[in-house]
Amino acid sequence: MSERPLVIVAPHPRDLDMIFTLDALSEFRERYELVETTSGEIDALPTDVLARARYLVGQPDISDALLAAMTNLRAIVNVEGNFTDNMPYATCFERGIHVLITSSVFAEPVAEMGLGMALSLHRQIAKADADFRRGEEVWGLDGNGSAQLLTGSRIGIVGFGDLGRCLNRLLAGFRAKVRVYDPWLPASTITDHGAKATALDDILAKSDTVFVTASVTADNQHLFDARAFASMKPGAAFVLLSRAGIVDFDAMREAAASGHIKVATDVFPEEPPAADDPVRSTPNMILSAHRAGALDRVFKRMGDILLDDLELMDAGLPPVRARRAERETVRRMRSKPVSKS
Amino acid sequence: MSERPLVIVAPHPRDLDMIFTLDALSEFRERYELVETTSGEIDALPTDVLARARYLVGQPDISDALLAAMTNLRAIVNVEGNFTDNMPYATCFERGIHVLITSSVFAEPVAEMGLGMALSLHRQIAKADADFRRGEEVWGLDGNGSAQLLTGSRIGIVGFGDLGRCLNRLLAGFRAKVRVYDPWLPASTITDHGAKATALDDILAKSDTVFVTASVTADNQHLFDARAFASMKPGAAFVLLSRAGIVDFDAMREAAASGHIKVATDVFPEEPPAADDPVRSTPNMILSAHRAGALDRVFKRMGDILLDDLELMDAGLPPVRARRAERETVRRMRSKPVSKS
Amino acid sequence: MSERPLVIVAPHPRDLDMIFTLDALSEFRERYELVETTSGEIDALPTDVLARARYLVGQPDISDALLAAMTNLRAIVNVEGNFTDNMPYATCFERGIHVLITSSVFAEPVAEMGLGMALSLHRQIAKADADFRRGEEVWGLDGNGSAQLLTGSRIGIVGFGDLGRCLNRLLAGFRAKVRVYDPWLPASTITDHGAKATALDDILAKSDTVFVTASVTADNQHLFDARAFASMKPGAAFVLLSRAGIVDFDAMREAAASGHIKVATDVFPEEPPAADDPVRSTPNMILSAHRAGALDRVFKRMGDILLDDLELMDAGLPPVRARRAERETVRRMRSKPVSKS
Amino acid sequence: MSERPLVIVAPHPRDLDMIFTLDALSEFRERYELVETTSGEIDALPTDVLARARYLVGQPDISDALLAAMTNLRAIVNVEGNFTDNMPYATCFERGIHVLITSSVFAEPVAEMGLGMALSLHRQIAKADADFRRGEEVWGLDGNGSAQLLTGSRIGIVGFGDLGRCLNRLLAGFRAKVRVYDPWLPASTITDHGAKATALDDILAKSDTVFVTASVTADNQHLFDARAFASMKPGAAFVLLSRAGIVDFDAMREAAASGHIKVATDVFPEEPPAADDPVRSTPNMILSAHRAGALDRVFKRMGDILLDDLELMDAGLPPVRARRAERETVRRMRSKPVSKS
Repeated sequence: MSERPLVIVAPHPRDLDMIFTLDALSEFRERYELVETTSGEIDALPTDVLARARYLVGQPDISDALLAAMTNLRAIVNVEGNFTDNMPYATCFERGIHVLITSSVFAEPVAEMGLGMALSLHRQIAKADADFRRGEEVWGLDGNGSAQLLTGSRIGIVGFGDLGRCLNRLLAGFRAKVRVYDPWLPASTITDHGAKATALDDILAKSDTVFVTASVTADNQHLFDARAFASMKPGAAFVLLSRAGIVDFDAMREAAASGHIKVATDVFPEEPPAADDPVRSTPNMILSAHRAGALDRVFKRMGDILLDDLELMDAGLPPVRARRAERETVRRMRSKPVSKS
Repeated sequence: MSERPLVIVAPHPRDLDMIFTLDALSEFRERYELVETTSGEIDALPTDVLARARYLVGQPDISDALLAAMTNLRAIVNVEGNFTDNMPYATCFERGIHVLITSSVFAEPVAEMGLGMALSLHRQIAKADADFRRGEEVWGLDGNGSAQLLTGSRIGIVGFGDLGRCLNRLLAGFRAKVRVYDPWLPASTITDHGAKATALDDILAKSDTVFVTASVTADNQHLFDARAFASMKPGAAFVLLSRAGIVDFDAMREAAASGHIKVATDVFPEEPPAADDPVRSTPNMILSAHRAGALDRVFKRMGDILLDDLELMDAGLPPVRARRAERETVRRMRSKPVSKS
Repeated sequence: MSERPLVIVAPHPRDLDMIFTLDALSEFRERYELVETTSGEIDALPTDVLARARYLVGQPDISDALLAAMTNLRAIVNVEGNFTDNMPYATCFERGIHVLITSSVFAEPVAEMGLGMALSLHRQIAKADADFRRGEEVWGLDGNGSAQLLTGSRIGIVGFGDLGRCLNRLLAGFRAKVRVYDPWLPASTITDHGAKATALDDILAKSDTVFVTASVTADNQHLFDARAFASMKPGAAFVLLSRAGIVDFDAMREAAASGHIKVATDVFPEEPPAADDPVRSTPNMILSAHRAGALDRVFKRMGDILLDDLELMDAGLPPVRARRAERETVRRMRSKPVSKS
Repeated sequence: MSERPLVIVAPHPRDLDMIFTLDALSEFRERYELVETTSGEIDALPTDVLARARYLVGQPDISDALLAAMTNLRAIVNVEGNFTDNMPYATCFERGIHVLITSSVFAEPVAEMGLGMALSLHRQIAKADADFRRGEEVWGLDGNGSAQLLTGSRIGIVGFGDLGRCLNRLLAGFRAKVRVYDPWLPASTITDHGAKATALDDILAKSDTVFVTASVTADNQHLFDARAFASMKPGAAFVLLSRAGIVDFDAMREAAASGHIKVATDVFPEEPPAADDPVRSTPNMILSAHRAGALDRVFKRMGDILLDDLELMDAGLPPVRARRAERETVRRMRSKPVSKS
């Protein structure tokens, strides 16, 4: 006997222990009848299970037939972090099935990492520590040749989704002049956040620090090329936080190697890069092995979002915490899904 | 012929080119008749020069006789950064001569460095970069074992002068719970800044990050000893931004070496430490060679403060930008002056 | 010859001069081919006009047949301010036609009016002015019997849509403890705005000021009744900014008349109330004739939202400034549309 | 036997019950030996009492002889609200006796009243309520002819002490462009508070709302005259919060009467004005009978400041909460002391 709503669970490459705290998982199990499965096995679930499913948590491949069989489905909740082209989105939209993503959990950790990288670049925190350990530190003023303050400086943010907005919030205390480029938003939305909508060329030419937070789409592959890096202010910092596809990586590396700009990156075209990849010895760079968002405690916030939004939908209300796939944009995304966390 | 007020200038170890921008120095020279001298030679200035001096910019030794000779003096402006016990303060206070210090310029650069260090400690930015360059990086979640977010965390600030307040301001976007210990301030002043006045023991026991910004005084030498470090939360970060005298440095180093806490420091008991000082190879530390405040552009803000406050005093108004020496506390300070920047 | 997208315009009870500035209207006419019509005449438009229409601006009655005829429709933009049950919403959602509302323009003017009313209630600004004009003013401390500060006080906001959030933003400088009740939102969303999700009973019992900003729905008619007002703190202020249906108006008036609480209202069950309605002479009340949102310059912001969102949709992107009707809630609304502004 | 420090108390026109909460007064009595007296009787206190007095709370007349007799005096704490020329300030400064004033308690209540008045002027809250009660209300848009929003508007603040800064803080949520005129401050201090230092003429010509918070000094009597009011934008609001002496009151009244500007005032040249004073029937004005600061709970905060600062001085530290008299400015003040609260 169960009157609890049924949830099909196929969270691979996550698992439930990863995306829920112990308490939240207990609540999840208490509130719902869970049917745990995988992408390969979901089609084989009994018809009545499919028919009773109110929610699907995960990002398995979904065929037209499978979607048709889930006659009571209210929402599909992606807990990986990127929408992929593996389900009949049009039918979901027609039927009013919410397709949700919990990737907003990554905004805070990635924004903090980005700010930490920018401060480290401008003040040479990482390099000075390495020098000190080799007995080659330079003291006081002499050790601060190219140092810059963020306070009062000109900061560019490219992409103004959850991550860009979180960065903007973290910068609140710095009294900086923040300019934003996001072609999916009108200027007024950016102004509402206390920043200034600005053309990309202008951002590159005028910023002391540029943060790249935009997702890769069909339109912005290699948006940042040699010409873009050359147009930046000497000594400016370029912090790449989203995906490597948005930059010409070699051009970026060379712009750092030449000393023209400073660069920090959390992402690479191939991960890991080869042992002899020149990026590993390029000066004026901070290298991070795709670590910016992947914190234990961060993944567990996905479960909190899930519980909040499922509760709203149980009450016949729309979800408010997860981000919804949009008809217009869901198929423009080009991020590769992760195979492991 | 000169009707401009006379200023005696003895800024050593600074010089005027260091503390003024070109434009500000022009304005300074235009507004005032400058008599440039040194600590050793100031006594030998002509009596009428001393008598006409309205301001003294610098921190030379001043005898009772010399002060008596400067009959029209309105202010002594220290541009080094620490009050030292080399002048008859009591007489200054009696006569209403302001003794001013421009050290507030260091608050922003040191606070930014402190925040950058904290982010680097919690997210291992420096260490991960070094690992990557050696081909030993760890990817994604696996590389984030002890990572913590500042957002929403518990942060302690010890000392709530210009620097502590600036740090608190930089943290505005982090929605952190900020606790402050400053025995020279009532709780209400701290509350006014959105933080919570807290006993030091509590700050140590509860904070995920502790920033030490307090000046060294007669009362707080070795305030942080082995017991203090042991009382901290495992994995917490300790960021030392003021002077080494306030900590038992060996105990701090050992607390990092043991893995109990993470430590960043800009200051050392002896600067530089010996080539074989164990601090140079201690893990879980970020080392910085007294570089947090010493930026070219920061020193030049001293000149701006000077010009602002001298203009006010010229108009018969009190200075507002530089900090004043206080009768009660000026002689409690124990910071060693710097011999070079 | 026209390659401009076609927009059917039926904005009654607004008109285009009301919702656009001169410049914005020029841009609107330049970007689009406008077909201006009315609710009664829209069915009679030529088939090809209906078929070519990309947008419909206004809130006319729409039959199934009419909607079917508009085969290229991307969005219906309501410029009145309330969704009404006069179109086949289900079909809109199926077809992916955005149903949008520009009512967010009212948030700022209504929030400012609400804050002004609260300050006026707590400091008796209106009453003291009237007394002064009659020669009956009371001076200084004696005139401030029940005065309260907002700074540091406990403030309740009921309903946390555009208006409630705007109020919360205006209160930023007051360091108040803001509690919010909104059954359509999880606690975490409220926490994200620096407020605390709280049960309604608690808000009533603990708040020094309660702002009601919630729309009337099927569930909240007469949510505030005699029992609710009795549970409020003596001397608390109750500020009604949304619709009269949410309160038992007589009970509210009596709670003010008795001196138990102070009340401000911008809305009335019948507008205008009768000449001899007791509300007109009730003490401890501020009366406003549905004026909180209806400012010339505010209506004109609807045109800005329109231009922004139509431009996004022209580019194949989703609208971001207007609020979308939601399948789950659009038919729960119970606000009566206005017949004139 | 008493080892408690001795405090001479002469708070007239306040009394201890007015400036302390019950708990704070208990603490005050516990911590100190109080000798309660009056301005007339203080000279007659026993020599040893005078000699032992560490603090004097109040603003009695003090002769040279009396001050000389108080050989251990550390501070005189004015609890009235204005420095007056009734004591040998020069000697106090020489001896290092702090002369303190607790008037910062008035900043919050006066700033809130000022903001409430501005909102009431721009939205006609008081007038519309009066009209409604007479059955002459005008509904909706038609009732909002001259209404303006504060959000995003241009706001001028004249005088940037405790009150002006508190107003600026309350305005934080309004995203307004705040300009400040204060001839006692450098531009940089104003910039630090997020406002813009501006010449007075510019503030008058460009502001939608002007708040006057400056104390009356020898230099600014009738600073706002007919020419100043004529230079304001039509429909702008002028809110007078400090003292009447700073304006040509008749000119201000006439500027309101003519409809050129809107005016709110808490102060009058004679208080109360005559029964037939035309100000009582001037339209476009809000009249308040010197009530902005005089709240019970506000006076009691004086006691909190006292307890905090006395505790610091007991510990040999400088006071930080009360404002200190300055040698340069204490005798420039021209406010008349109040005779009653």
